Amino acid sequence: MTRHLFMQELRELNQNVIRMGSLLEKSINDVIVALEKLDASLATEIIKNDDAIDDLEHQIERECIAMIAKQQPLATDLRKVTSIMKIVTDVERIADHCADISEYIIVLTKQSNVIAPKNLKEMVNVMKSMVIETIDSFVEVDGAKANQVIAKDDIVDNYFASISNELTEIMQGNKEAIPACVSYLMIIKYLERMADHATNIAEWIEYIITGTMIEGN
Amino acid sequence: MTRHLFMQELRELNQNVIRMGSLLEKSINDVIVALEKLDASLATEIIKNDDAIDDLEHQIERECIAMIAKQQPLATDLRKVTSIMKIVTDVERIADHCADISEYIIVLTKQSNVIAPKNLKEMVNVMKSMVIETIDSFVEVDGAKANQVIAKDDIVDNYFASISNELTEIMQGNKEAIPACVSYLMIIKYLERMADHATNIAEWIEYIITGTMIEGN
Repeated sequence: MTRHLFMQELRELNQNVIRMGSLLEKSINDVIVALEKLDASLATEIIKNDDAIDDLEHQIERECIAMIAKQQPLATDLRKVTSIMKIVTDVERIADHCADISEYIIVLTKQSNVIAPKNLKEMVNVMKSMVIETIDSFVEVDGAKANQVIAKDDIVDNYFASISNELTEIMQGNKEAIPACVSYLMIIKYLERMADHATNIAEWIEYIITGTMIEGN
Repeated sequence: MTRHLFMQELRELNQNVIRMGSLLEKSINDVIVALEKLDASLATEIIKNDDAIDDLEHQIERECIAMIAKQQPLATDLRKVTSIMKIVTDVERIADHCADISEYIIVLTKQSNVIAPKNLKEMVNVMKSMVIETIDSFVEVDGAKANQVIAKDDIVDNYFASISNELTEIMQGNKEAIPACVSYLMIIKYLERMADHATNIAEWIEYIITGTMIEGN
């Protein structure tokens, strides 16, 4: 009976994590559009929507703590609940960074000589695929998919380095473009951090499945 | 008896968090010196020392999970253990950022036309005081001190904005200084994130004391 109730609550908890993942996916899709079109009103909307993700994070944390207190889960179940507590922190941080990037998008709409770095779109797409695959690997409890996410982190790091060089060259060639390039430098830093957080989540999914913590990050 | 054992384990857990805090304090002190003197060998040492903090984070996480499983704590005790699980993540991220900054310090030692931003030292000092006060407020279970930390976050954000403007001006006035300024831009971004993580920890300390989660971050 207790076990039955626990499984019921765990399913509801999972659903809330998946709901949080869906909200995050929407934010990421929106931020990609806002970044490409430099759409200040969409960026403002993303910042507003961040509150719902924050609220859901706190709700899930409270649910986790209540479940541990009431049901006193052991072994795999406890591992799952404590991992979810960690995962939602990273999900929330990725969403935070969508809002952080949106603030720079709004700044960019007011700046002149805005030249988007060549590989920005590719960098965004790899990061996005990492987040989506992380959510999928959570839903499907798929360790192989989680490992794919971890492997992709280097690709994002390489994009960060090459775009950072590109922006340095643009600034050296065009003084007027410097303020906008600084905005893009911050944006690619956030993109790189988002990929790091996706990697953290993938490592927690590995932990749920295997019981072994991956060192790193 | 179980309660007695739990209190014993909680004291040990607290000691490990404090140990982690001491290692972090050392990293921050070192990074301040390395940043001021642009000392590549000290920066290399900071990067190496980061492993010990990572290991301690995983050890504390395992201890928290084991304590929850074995002792099945309730109410305040459970809140304390789950909060520690969250706190160590932020402590580890701050330490990570010490290592991230150290990598940029090494880059700076190879760059020319390196001009340190005027208020960098002040920004570092405010961030450092936030981290130290956070650790203190944990040790002393001092909610007022935790609130002071939260209030300081805006000061660091303001430094970030003003130094970012200063670096933009330096770049506009001296093309040769651009690569080094990009390194400093990344460094101040990490400093700002470190202050954010200190704020997160302070909010968890508030939660341990009051049972109420502060919205934000």
